[in-house]
Amino acid sequence: MAKIRLYTPGPTPVPEQVLLDMAQPMDHHRTKQYQDLLAEATNGLKYVLRTQNDVLTFTSSGTGAMEGAIVCCAQPGRKALVVSGGKFGERWGLVCQAFGIEHTILDVEWGRGVEPTMIEQHLKNDPKIGMVIVVHCETSTAAASDIEAIGKIVAKTDALLLIDAISSAGGMPIKTDEWKLDIVVTGSQKALMLPPGLAFAAVSEKAWKVIDANKPKAFYFDYRAYRKAIKKNDAPYTPALTLVRGLHRSLQMIQQEGIENVWKRTETLAKASRAAFVAMGLKIYATNPADSVTAVCVPEGLDEAQLRKTLRSDYGVHLAGGQGELTGKVFRITHMGYIDVVDTLGALGAIEAVLIRMGHKLTPGAGLAAAQKVLVKQ
Amino acid sequence: MAKIRLYTPGPTPVPEQVLLDMAQPMDHHRTKQYQDLLAEATNGLKYVLRTQNDVLTFTSSGTGAMEGAIVCCAQPGRKALVVSGGKFGERWGLVCQAFGIEHTILDVEWGRGVEPTMIEQHLKNDPKIGMVIVVHCETSTAAASDIEAIGKIVAKTDALLLIDAISSAGGMPIKTDEWKLDIVVTGSQKALMLPPGLAFAAVSEKAWKVIDANKPKAFYFDYRAYRKAIKKNDAPYTPALTLVRGLHRSLQMIQQEGIENVWKRTETLAKASRAAFVAMGLKIYATNPADSVTAVCVPEGLDEAQLRKTLRSDYGVHLAGGQGELTGKVFRITHMGYIDVVDTLGALGAIEAVLIRMGHKLTPGAGLAAAQKVLVKQ
Repeated sequence: MAKIRLYTPGPTPVPEQVLLDMAQPMDHHRTKQYQDLLAEATNGLKYVLRTQNDVLTFTSSGTGAMEGAIVCCAQPGRKALVVSGGKFGERWGLVCQAFGIEHTILDVEWGRGVEPTMIEQHLKNDPKIGMVIVVHCETSTAAASDIEAIGKIVAKTDALLLIDAISSAGGMPIKTDEWKLDIVVTGSQKALMLPPGLAFAAVSEKAWKVIDANKPKAFYFDYRAYRKAIKKNDAPYTPALTLVRGLHRSLQMIQQEGIENVWKRTETLAKASRAAFVAMGLKIYATNPADSVTAVCVPEGLDEAQLRKTLRSDYGVHLAGGQGELTGKVFRITHMGYIDVVDTLGALGAIEAVLIRMGHKLTPGAGLAAAQKVLVKQ
Repeated sequence: MAKIRLYTPGPTPVPEQVLLDMAQPMDHHRTKQYQDLLAEATNGLKYVLRTQNDVLTFTSSGTGAMEGAIVCCAQPGRKALVVSGGKFGERWGLVCQAFGIEHTILDVEWGRGVEPTMIEQHLKNDPKIGMVIVVHCETSTAAASDIEAIGKIVAKTDALLLIDAISSAGGMPIKTDEWKLDIVVTGSQKALMLPPGLAFAAVSEKAWKVIDANKPKAFYFDYRAYRKAIKKNDAPYTPALTLVRGLHRSLQMIQQEGIENVWKRTETLAKASRAAFVAMGLKIYATNPADSVTAVCVPEGLDEAQLRKTLRSDYGVHLAGGQGELTGKVFRITHMGYIDVVDTLGALGAIEAVLIRMGHKLTPGAGLAAAQKVLVKQ
């Protein structure tokens, strides 16, 4: 029996009821039925992101919506401050580079969140900074930044704050309006429990003012076209409507559970997992660990690729490896989305078993017991 | 019983077996299984497009892949010749405008294909033209252009030929290599029998040379990143993997039928439908009609929106209306994709019945008989 379970930080498992909703017969998107469905989905996204701002839906990966945000918000004569502490922070710097957007990279040690005061300092020293780009949960290192504190700092200036919340939104607390986040981008294949193919952006009034004055050099990712369309529950270009139908369903599930409960569940699973890995004698890579995903250092001499390969072939447990400079050094396991206690305990047990088989010294059940201690306390 | 059937030129109906393939449990895209599946799908796309060129897969609507083609092929100091005879030709002009790409619009009367000699003349008179953008089937008017003849003309120059084949590829003959088409773009939700969300581009060596020399100001739609990834059966950004799984299945179906047979089926249904509409006393809008979709003029005094509304509510037949200046003046019916004789005769009969009910004078069965005459001849 091959029962594959995804524990990768995107794609994540998709609930069966969502898969079947997407398999319903095709209908057209210029119908009242679809428009009502999109309206409800958009409201669901606002609920998840805790915002009254416009929320736009793109047919693309999260990278596309982030590119759109960066290009649309890049003001002539101003520059971007790009916080980079992993592969995705690096990517937003590359987007600036590709489009000739002047930018400063604020390098953060991999595994750490950015110090909010560092951003404050940059904004003080360089009034040319017109936007600050921060990754909430850096998927490659599983480190989180304090976007609430950063929001307070940037809100005092005329700069915009762009948040890559692709692997955090819906899994970790984000209060877009309260924290004054100007653009929050996320994707479908993470905490929103959908296949990849959709990306979303919540856009503040402060951001719209800049975008409207900018007249950005963009077409497919021109945020203005999506704002105009969403007001009529439409999209400027044919939308990935089966995925939107799935979104409608998965957001219903999130609303039924309650977003605070989803955040709490994710946090609990993350805490239990971290405790388990420490009890197995492993090190958590991030000093500021995110709750949506954990990166775990693989002990010296242990073959990380082999570990993951055996987990998949013998237990159906699909973990993610390391990215970039972390290849072979860490594995990553997700806690966000359609993942519960049973999934988590099962995966932790499988990891323990394979570690033992590969010669790593640990008492069988030590990791599981540590996880259980955290879980029963909740 | 509400049995909705799409006859819109995108989205089109998706076969049940494709819908269910896409509803299989989620797996990861960095697995041998997925890479093999993508490799097979890419080969299937090459088969459909009759090409040995690289074929790239994007998570976006067709518009996104066209934007990428235009931006990647726009050489500094050169300009674009944009053939515009409908809403989509207009759109590619707007893309040039958005990105500040110098361009000439070659205006073609709506409903006509472009005269290939007009393109020849432009290329002779203006050596600055570095790319020619032509819509194969202009979805808004259902008119086709002779891209084989245009291919021969452009191939003699150093200009690139970019074809929007979004609503033609897989439904009408396209021989990318034989006709020397440099970039052929299509989308998933037309003749390929999939939901919207994927776009594809076949790219010639001549185009790659330009793109590589260009170093385009693009990121998400930078064709170079997709070429690099596809060589390893990968994508640069998380792909819409459930749609790719569906693509794999729908391409299998096309290969089983044989692409020449698919073209022939589409052509036959188009011919039968046109004969039927003429027999109903209606006029075909395009003087150079495409075979993937037909635009039909609605008689003076007949409420086009009401016609379509009744067809959907009473017969489950969903036609498309007119776009832009054709709103209220034409309806459109598709012949491409998962559409057969039974679907077509059923829709033609329903249209006849509603026309009669709305006071249009015609002998009941006249349209159906005319269609049948064409069908039995094949």
